[in-house]
Amino acid sequence: MKVRDFGEFGLIEKLNQILPINDKDVIVGYGDDCACVKLDNTLLLFTVDIQVENVHFLKDRIDPTDLGWKLSTSNVSDIVSCGGRPRWALISLALPKDLDYDFIKGIYEGIKQAQDYYGFFTIGGNVSSSSQVMIDMSMVGQTDRFVGRSGAKVGDFVYVSSELGLSKAGLELILMNKNFYEDFEERLIKRHYRPTARLDLLDSVLQANSCIDISDGLVSDLWHISKKSQVKIVIEQEYLKVHPDLELFCNKYGKNPYDYILYSGEEYQLALTSNKEMDLMKIGYVEEGEGVYIKSKSQIVKLDEKGFRHF
Amino acid sequence: MKVRDFGEFGLIEKLNQILPINDKDVIVGYGDDCACVKLDNTLLLFTVDIQVENVHFLKDRIDPTDLGWKLSTSNVSDIVSCGGRPRWALISLALPKDLDYDFIKGIYEGIKQAQDYYGFFTIGGNVSSSSQVMIDMSMVGQTDRFVGRSGAKVGDFVYVSSELGLSKAGLELILMNKNFYEDFEERLIKRHYRPTARLDLLDSVLQANSCIDISDGLVSDLWHISKKSQVKIVIEQEYLKVHPDLELFCNKYGKNPYDYILYSGEEYQLALTSNKEMDLMKIGYVEEGEGVYIKSKSQIVKLDEKGFRHF
Repeated sequence: MKVRDFGEFGLIEKLNQILPINDKDVIVGYGDDCACVKLDNTLLLFTVDIQVENVHFLKDRIDPTDLGWKLSTSNVSDIVSCGGRPRWALISLALPKDLDYDFIKGIYEGIKQAQDYYGFFTIGGNVSSSSQVMIDMSMVGQTDRFVGRSGAKVGDFVYVSSELGLSKAGLELILMNKNFYEDFEERLIKRHYRPTARLDLLDSVLQANSCIDISDGLVSDLWHISKKSQVKIVIEQEYLKVHPDLELFCNKYGKNPYDYILYSGEEYQLALTSNKEMDLMKIGYVEEGEGVYIKSKSQIVKLDEKGFRHF
Repeated sequence: MKVRDFGEFGLIEKLNQILPINDKDVIVGYGDDCACVKLDNTLLLFTVDIQVENVHFLKDRIDPTDLGWKLSTSNVSDIVSCGGRPRWALISLALPKDLDYDFIKGIYEGIKQAQDYYGFFTIGGNVSSSSQVMIDMSMVGQTDRFVGRSGAKVGDFVYVSSELGLSKAGLELILMNKNFYEDFEERLIKRHYRPTARLDLLDSVLQANSCIDISDGLVSDLWHISKKSQVKIVIEQEYLKVHPDLELFCNKYGKNPYDYILYSGEEYQLALTSNKEMDLMKIGYVEEGEGVYIKSKSQIVKLDEKGFRHF
């Protein structure tokens, strides 16, 4: 068997079975955006995310400052979706010996911008050599209440923190490798390279029953909530707003905006469920059952669990 | 400028300047075996270590169980040298898609053995694709008192937790790629592949003024203490014990045992300084001044700071 035969999530699940957790201080182990441990009067959140050359980025195409920013954002986003505030990070670098110093310096400058914006500090790390550039960041957050994937309740509404789909459109534009981009195209590209974690919505997260950050794609991430909370989630298509820039993109290139809204990964927006009215975009509701569905005026359809996969 | 132009430690130092730490809860940031933060009534220790294919191991030559064990040991060793007990780990994997599942399974089984032996739990992680196998482990420890590189005092004795040099001899034997190894050679190879972190000596560490784990080599690691504590360290050559297996090795291959004792990395033994008499191997003392010296009956010589470097 090769690792690809298991799929990304299948592999993680199978490996985690080898390492059972038997520690009363561990509130949440595998299977959520963060692990969570109780320590005295506080809850600590732990997450880790990596950026690998030729998998997550092309060295000659990306601004390293964007890379440092995005890596930080992906970690902060995990902390926020569990109800926490980012505190400390460790950085593990694996670098080719002949890498230009300016590239890694740029990554660190991007991390500095993120630190200043999100309010965390990098306190340690490690460096090794390798043939591919790899930057692995682990982050510690702090909260009073763990919010995650498993708390969605029948009767909740489903909210998202923004229009979706822009990151995928931005990535496709980058891959077109054009000499000239229109203004709306530049904005979409920026949404891919410089996403922002929604730390500004922490109060809303702390009032929610469940939350996830949209890194695999809306449908795939709502499936995570559905499975962990053992509920059925229904998206109402008419509630899905198409961002004006995505509309321009889809008109220009003959694309269906819902392919982007439903399946765009690396959005770093939040999907929440709550039985309260929230000042966010309502897109659906939670029922008894399982799975993720989309409802239009004429029909209700079960959505395949798909999104970005590493394997 | 290329990253190799800075050297491993120079690169880390230069990058860390981009990310200053300004957080009253951070007791120790960069520059020690662990970072340390204060949280309510406890001190948390953080460290991270990576194993990269073709840098730290050859996939076709290593038993993956040993790899998982060694990665865990290197992290536990950092926690112990700062006076802590390991609690939780996160694992970040970057794997080629066509990697045999049994290889990664073996790594996890080695981590499981280490968890059971050292008493920590892996609580989360991440998986990505890559062209080289890379396993990055970050670990959280807990202590009441931070012990590290900066507390050595004039008048301290210098102790080590064992005879040294065996890991380097083991590595050289592995690289000889022989069809037959004598018993003492097999034991040396095992010391390279299956080192043990000295969690059993935690009480001694907590009574020491300073401590470091020997991962770069005795001289290089004592230089770290010398610099961080602003003291001079004198090793008395007559106190350095040659392990019987190292003696057999050096006799057989015409090597000088002190090249191994002084410069063998990945030992994961401890070097401590204390003004108390300790039940460990005394190898020297701490004086006013700077640098690391070796004293024989006839002379005292300043030792170059050298050891294993990634760049």
